[in-house]
Amino acid sequence: MRGTVLYAPRDVRFEERGTPSIVEPTDAVIRMSATCVCGSDLWPYRGINPVTQPTPMGHEYCGIVEEIGSAVTTVKRGQFVIGSFFASDNTCPHCKAGYPSSCQHRELVGGAQAPLLRVPLADGTLVPLPRTPADYMIPSLLTLSDVMGTGWFAAYAANVKPGMSVAVVGDGAVGLLGVLSARQKGAEQIIAMSRHESRQKLAREFGATDVVTERGDEGVERIKELTNGIGADAVLECVGTQESMMQAIRCTRPGGSVGYVGVPHGVELSGEKLFYTHIRLHGGPAPVRRFLPELIDLVWNGQINPGKVFDLTLPLDQVAEGYRAMDERRAIKTLLRP
Amino acid sequence: MRGTVLYAPRDVRFEERGTPSIVEPTDAVIRMSATCVCGSDLWPYRGINPVTQPTPMGHEYCGIVEEIGSAVTTVKRGQFVIGSFFASDNTCPHCKAGYPSSCQHRELVGGAQAPLLRVPLADGTLVPLPRTPADYMIPSLLTLSDVMGTGWFAAYAANVKPGMSVAVVGDGAVGLLGVLSARQKGAEQIIAMSRHESRQKLAREFGATDVVTERGDEGVERIKELTNGIGADAVLECVGTQESMMQAIRCTRPGGSVGYVGVPHGVELSGEKLFYTHIRLHGGPAPVRRFLPELIDLVWNGQINPGKVFDLTLPLDQVAEGYRAMDERRAIKTLLRP
Repeated sequence: MRGTVLYAPRDVRFEERGTPSIVEPTDAVIRMSATCVCGSDLWPYRGINPVTQPTPMGHEYCGIVEEIGSAVTTVKRGQFVIGSFFASDNTCPHCKAGYPSSCQHRELVGGAQAPLLRVPLADGTLVPLPRTPADYMIPSLLTLSDVMGTGWFAAYAANVKPGMSVAVVGDGAVGLLGVLSARQKGAEQIIAMSRHESRQKLAREFGATDVVTERGDEGVERIKELTNGIGADAVLECVGTQESMMQAIRCTRPGGSVGYVGVPHGVELSGEKLFYTHIRLHGGPAPVRRFLPELIDLVWNGQINPGKVFDLTLPLDQVAEGYRAMDERRAIKTLLRP
Repeated sequence: MRGTVLYAPRDVRFEERGTPSIVEPTDAVIRMSATCVCGSDLWPYRGINPVTQPTPMGHEYCGIVEEIGSAVTTVKRGQFVIGSFFASDNTCPHCKAGYPSSCQHRELVGGAQAPLLRVPLADGTLVPLPRTPADYMIPSLLTLSDVMGTGWFAAYAANVKPGMSVAVVGDGAVGLLGVLSARQKGAEQIIAMSRHESRQKLAREFGATDVVTERGDEGVERIKELTNGIGADAVLECVGTQESMMQAIRCTRPGGSVGYVGVPHGVELSGEKLFYTHIRLHGGPAPVRRFLPELIDLVWNGQINPGKVFDLTLPLDQVAEGYRAMDERRAIKTLLRP
């Protein structure tokens, strides 16, 4: 089988590697209907996370179960399934409390930018759909594996409730789906922070009521202006830099919430400054598995169409161009078809 | 009038200073029934916060209204009142959202370790009692001005709900009243972290079910052991150091909450570490004014007796000994009687 391997910053190869097979009796192997490139794949691609060895890439997936291990009971061959980028047993106390991405037995899923993928803890991780979906639905279903689940968690972690004012920091795919999530949860005012016209457009399509192009002090001022001098009730931090985190915190009203899902890179928070903001902070790797049944329903019933974040579709073997397009911000997110 | 003035670390004087009077038409002057020394007074007393000029001390108070400004309408001369250490208008959006300690017009109240005190924004800040309380009730009512309100906010910020497991970091007066607050809010298991016998005893009296004397890694291990390997549902951080904050964060289960009320001194949080803990973080200067009506009722009806934290009572003019006793941890908290 050929699959995607990152050798060094900006060196993505689609090359022969071992075909995934059942290793543990709790594994499943699935045949990818589609996969994609994640914003977090750009961290090692750009050399911000070190690449110490050739690394199979990709952790977003949906497809047909090809094979199951002997201990797998709830997932069957031939079913169309979606799973999270963190495999989880779905039975431990952390899973039961709604945090499968902190599962006591969690494992990162890796190597999904390929035709076949081994998924550990298949019973806990994979959610089968009632039947194989129509092809047009695949992109939206694929987003539930990470990017949409992450935007949804940002809105959940920021306590978005009907009628609220919400600001979204970051206009990547997660930020844009944060906008969609806030809208779905009934936010009244949704302020997207974006400087890119195509992303602003999609943000408005997903439900943004305002767009703010300023950043830093000016960005804070604009959000305050738009919220009667108070600050937003909820802010979604979807980047992970010091600048974006401080932007989010400073835009939030006292007693308001920041939901942060951008993997922090070099972020340091002063306890004293945080103390006097009176904000609530919650975030982390999205507990995608928790949200899958609910989000699958929303896609299945046509209530949300998160697949719109894919503005570039490529055959899987052109994955390197998919990375380049996202790195250069020519594409918001690249869908890959095996 | 003589009042308490801090000149330099460990140099507390009770000496002649100006008698408080109405400055703004929204002020009130109250005659203290009792006042006390706060844990936070020890930061400048110990030289950790710099003392740049002679500073009138004290911000916890209750007493009889002596005089009101011409614009004051809801508070009358002769009433017994309690107020917060932050004066607030109680009408701005932050007050209305429940965060009077972030009031757009907030002012720190200062100089309460004296027979008379000027309180700004009297209508918004002071809560009159139905009648002058019996003397035995004064210590408990006094705690509502800060220390009990702060312990209560710690439990609120940590989302304490009936049946939960709660850990309390810090065995000062705030921590002990955090225990009482958690109990009042229906926590099932309350773990007090304390190494001092008299404080452990009071913690148990206030509702602690377990006491942990270990700190650091061992403290985390003990809390995990006591919570089936999971971590506590809610943790109250009542100190404000890097060590105590990390203790609190590491004792909390994924999806659990840390309520932090110890004023942070030198606390720095790594965004990345915080991210993978999956905890919720909320805290800040307690919005005491919000809780006053509820807490006054609880004291008035004899349901809570937070005044037990005062294990030393001194005449006001012996205030310096009150500071010394707390600094040397001979006393948990010193009540001062004018």
